[in-house]
Amino acid sequence: MKRIGILTSGGDAPGMNAAVRAVARKALSSKLEVCGINYGYKGLVEGNIFEIKEKEVSDLIQLGGTTLYTARYPEFAEKEYQLKGIEQLKKHGIDALVTIGGDGSYHGAVRLTEQGYNAIGLPGTIDNDIPFTDRTIGFDTAIQTSVEEIDKVRDTAKSHGRIFVVEVMGRNSGEIALRTAIASGSQAVIIPEKPFDVDEIAGIVKDARRRGHEHQIIITAEGAIHAQDLTDQLANRGIDNIRGVALGHVVRGGAPTASDRVLASRMGSYAVDLLLDGQGGQAVGIEKGVITHHSMLDLFDSKAKTDLSMYDLANTLSY
Amino acid sequence: MKRIGILTSGGDAPGMNAAVRAVARKALSSKLEVCGINYGYKGLVEGNIFEIKEKEVSDLIQLGGTTLYTARYPEFAEKEYQLKGIEQLKKHGIDALVTIGGDGSYHGAVRLTEQGYNAIGLPGTIDNDIPFTDRTIGFDTAIQTSVEEIDKVRDTAKSHGRIFVVEVMGRNSGEIALRTAIASGSQAVIIPEKPFDVDEIAGIVKDARRRGHEHQIIITAEGAIHAQDLTDQLANRGIDNIRGVALGHVVRGGAPTASDRVLASRMGSYAVDLLLDGQGGQAVGIEKGVITHHSMLDLFDSKAKTDLSMYDLANTLSY
Amino acid sequence: MKRIGILTSGGDAPGMNAAVRAVARKALSSKLEVCGINYGYKGLVEGNIFEIKEKEVSDLIQLGGTTLYTARYPEFAEKEYQLKGIEQLKKHGIDALVTIGGDGSYHGAVRLTEQGYNAIGLPGTIDNDIPFTDRTIGFDTAIQTSVEEIDKVRDTAKSHGRIFVVEVMGRNSGEIALRTAIASGSQAVIIPEKPFDVDEIAGIVKDARRRGHEHQIIITAEGAIHAQDLTDQLANRGIDNIRGVALGHVVRGGAPTASDRVLASRMGSYAVDLLLDGQGGQAVGIEKGVITHHSMLDLFDSKAKTDLSMYDLANTLSY
Amino acid sequence: MKRIGILTSGGDAPGMNAAVRAVARKALSSKLEVCGINYGYKGLVEGNIFEIKEKEVSDLIQLGGTTLYTARYPEFAEKEYQLKGIEQLKKHGIDALVTIGGDGSYHGAVRLTEQGYNAIGLPGTIDNDIPFTDRTIGFDTAIQTSVEEIDKVRDTAKSHGRIFVVEVMGRNSGEIALRTAIASGSQAVIIPEKPFDVDEIAGIVKDARRRGHEHQIIITAEGAIHAQDLTDQLANRGIDNIRGVALGHVVRGGAPTASDRVLASRMGSYAVDLLLDGQGGQAVGIEKGVITHHSMLDLFDSKAKTDLSMYDLANTLSY
Repeated sequence: MKRIGILTSGGDAPGMNAAVRAVARKALSSKLEVCGINYGYKGLVEGNIFEIKEKEVSDLIQLGGTTLYTARYPEFAEKEYQLKGIEQLKKHGIDALVTIGGDGSYHGAVRLTEQGYNAIGLPGTIDNDIPFTDRTIGFDTAIQTSVEEIDKVRDTAKSHGRIFVVEVMGRNSGEIALRTAIASGSQAVIIPEKPFDVDEIAGIVKDARRRGHEHQIIITAEGAIHAQDLTDQLANRGIDNIRGVALGHVVRGGAPTASDRVLASRMGSYAVDLLLDGQGGQAVGIEKGVITHHSMLDLFDSKAKTDLSMYDLANTLSY
Repeated sequence: MKRIGILTSGGDAPGMNAAVRAVARKALSSKLEVCGINYGYKGLVEGNIFEIKEKEVSDLIQLGGTTLYTARYPEFAEKEYQLKGIEQLKKHGIDALVTIGGDGSYHGAVRLTEQGYNAIGLPGTIDNDIPFTDRTIGFDTAIQTSVEEIDKVRDTAKSHGRIFVVEVMGRNSGEIALRTAIASGSQAVIIPEKPFDVDEIAGIVKDARRRGHEHQIIITAEGAIHAQDLTDQLANRGIDNIRGVALGHVVRGGAPTASDRVLASRMGSYAVDLLLDGQGGQAVGIEKGVITHHSMLDLFDSKAKTDLSMYDLANTLSY
Repeated sequence: MKRIGILTSGGDAPGMNAAVRAVARKALSSKLEVCGINYGYKGLVEGNIFEIKEKEVSDLIQLGGTTLYTARYPEFAEKEYQLKGIEQLKKHGIDALVTIGGDGSYHGAVRLTEQGYNAIGLPGTIDNDIPFTDRTIGFDTAIQTSVEEIDKVRDTAKSHGRIFVVEVMGRNSGEIALRTAIASGSQAVIIPEKPFDVDEIAGIVKDARRRGHEHQIIITAEGAIHAQDLTDQLANRGIDNIRGVALGHVVRGGAPTASDRVLASRMGSYAVDLLLDGQGGQAVGIEKGVITHHSMLDLFDSKAKTDLSMYDLANTLSY
Repeated sequence: MKRIGILTSGGDAPGMNAAVRAVARKALSSKLEVCGINYGYKGLVEGNIFEIKEKEVSDLIQLGGTTLYTARYPEFAEKEYQLKGIEQLKKHGIDALVTIGGDGSYHGAVRLTEQGYNAIGLPGTIDNDIPFTDRTIGFDTAIQTSVEEIDKVRDTAKSHGRIFVVEVMGRNSGEIALRTAIASGSQAVIIPEKPFDVDEIAGIVKDARRRGHEHQIIITAEGAIHAQDLTDQLANRGIDNIRGVALGHVVRGGAPTASDRVLASRMGSYAVDLLLDGQGGQAVGIEKGVITHHSMLDLFDSKAKTDLSMYDLANTLSY
């Protein structure tokens, strides 16, 4: 192995740049050459590839988004496009790859590995919906940003004695919602992993108001119910002075937290170690504080687990 | 004059607490007693009033929202409720008042002044839509928060080569939108004060993409057109990879900027000077850097001006 | 057990309020009464104690510092003062205690437990220097704040092609320094746990400059060498355009990160579970992602471990 | 005039990049060519010059520091170096210049103008110490950052009932200190423009503590007395639980505030207008909200005024 490529794929996540830097620096310090591939698998197929020198990943670690750009590219599921990608790898002398993205990006990585180009995947997504890892790169930042936003919403809630229903991201996962609910002291939290009953929530809200909690924050995951819909349904049940707010794309961006930067750095360095060890088709994770890896094939057969102890804790503390 | 009251009214704005503190501290240092009135004119009518001691406004200057709470209370337009309010002023020995809020709050202040209770108004609203003042308390913070949000959105925009249409607050005013557009380097800005043509905007966007501006930010004021509507209309004109985001209530809250704290402090101190001078029915403003006051009656006959030179500047720099 | 007390002790740490809230809410939901004790053991001895109702811990979770105040109080090592403290516990009908602070606060907790008042300790300190826990409450925030500060320093460093030596907190521990170094992309990091050689560091810095790294960040832990001293020594070795900056008390304060809020919430809830289970003299920790507890006596015989794999990683990535 | 150059000089200030962008965009939209000159006058002399295309100032407005780099270069006071600079202007076909920096940078601009190369100066410095302008680019950000830092220090101050003496930047000016003092609710402020008496300050502090202000913030400008020195002198006068903190280079960096970005944008655009109008040797300012210009020669004969009404206000509100 003489030269490796790096690409980012899927939705952008804070910490992707920190991961790119870590992969590049670790590889360079191991006397490998490094190439950046712009726009994920799309860029791979189109040959949007350039060499990365040591200096070029300086002052990158703190940037949100991905300076390698990213794209969704379902075409890469087809053999024809995979072969075009491999053509480009040959042309640029790239022997192996690190991909950073959601589990969608792992499918391409498996195909390349099967064709003799070892590929290692790092979990780069804010949603924390990838099996075999307790955290994904970007997850901590997305929670942190959501909580900072809600701290601001709380000022208005308190000033007006108002209830705010706040919708957070997470696609089909309630992971962001659960941590955000605990960290923002919410009165209730709704996630796709748990059935919910609007009457019951209305009861909780009314009871809390009776006990003096004039203003309240309710968190809902986008995968469960939209903020405005829940707001309307609660208003229909006689709850007044209530508003819905959806935290949109603002929580995807921004400088990664220190914690995400450290995680990305550890994972990026580890990915190069795996490649140096001749491995491919492996997904990197962090489990109980330790960086680990699992076969992507095993990962495809698994489902990310939501930590439901957080659900109980959120409800206990909202007392 | 022995004792003054303070209330906040209308939508909350960052810097209201800094204004309350300034009024209280200045009054106390002038050997006046000070009362806080909770929930604006509603609290006045209901007698939700308490004495404020010097220590109780410590560590207040940095808080968003209003610790005196606020409420909309159209009932106070009626004589009957005004008299109830005056009853409470008598009962609590309050001789004069400072109100902090939008121009709606000034109407109550005029009525009280007519009844012999001098009232001075401070412009507390994020919208900067009050005549005879270049800036309102909360305006700078709302712009700052909007711009910080857009800095985050830009990370995603850039990573994906995507266009974001971002809607900012401001009710019927384009003031927040204009500064936000300049400060976030937007490609185009739409405000209620200027007619706009979606075809023209589509042309600007397409032309910029041709010149290499793959990702772009377009700012729209909520009083002009909603982000999602404009996004749909632009998409219908063949612009792809475009999304709408509405910055909601997050931009109302949060710690006031240093600049808003200084403004609120200057205005609060000045309001007490006016009361000490025996004046009432006056609205405080800042004009060309100097703290001023005007009769509220004159203000009702005027209209806040939008600085349209900012519109031209935004367009020039988006080149 | 009918009524429990809560106190914070030692240096303040972000997340202490979140822990107080969690203890109070969990206890109240378990039908216990709750008392706050101001100014730590000092307040205990002086009877500075008040009942906490459910509403009184609302809107607390996001605040830095500790609203229960804190104090260093070496007197509590003496029997005489412990007995005075117990007198107060009796007087206020308090059966058990949760203390939040550094390991200093655990000694008092052990004494009270021995006297029949079960006390549980939570690790509240930014320094992460407590055995049997992977993280202390406040540690994540202190790193985050340090890294945000360094992101700003980097702007000046880059603009001037300058080297900054940045000193971070941590007393005798290099834990904050190590994470900060990785997350800020530093060129070198100096910690008390590792011997260092100024000539060697000078060599690293000069070599990096030769490779084009005109501006650089070097992190030093306050327990190793002060920023200014190291700066002077490097300047004496012919390195020009170099400055020292000590990040002082700014990194102790500020709103806790979401991660610290969640940790504090989990630990606070767990502490009440231990008390309900009749336990005392136990220190709560988090190990491999799981909340745990250990006898404080065992803890006194142990030493917190610094994760030196972080040291190697920082050096690898600075390549 | 066909082609203009831009350089930044002196200490870096947030908003310099926004100014560079504005100059470049305005010039390009006026069909001028634009060159960036790296490292200020040093880069001019050394020919460190490159053409700036429209796209290259995208996503620049939010960055702290200066991407054109900066340097102090006293050599440019000498004729010999000025002639070398002019040689480079000729070589690169540059007809006129915009310089962004402190008043030091204006001397070079005057010399170039005398030689037939019109140069316009923008006030880029955090210190607000330039005549004929109410604000300099970077001033608002430096205050904002200082105040955010002190908000954090306050958490610790309050938790421990402690007094913090906080030193802010500003070289020989008290401008940053005054706004920071008002916006952070300080008990006292010390600036170089006003004589101060430590005994008197000790009296203020003690009196405030007697009135219940256990924790306090005192602001000192670096040009007046260092935080640690004042702390020691107050401690010697019997004030306990007091600490000094110097806010160092962290307040120079960071993303510019929206307000500084708007100011820089307005000034940058205006500078190009002046050049198009055939003017040189002019310093741009903002006075009473209006962008203005004055001859640099007049400016050299003047002194920046400190707004001492802020001093009185700070003291009144600290009551």
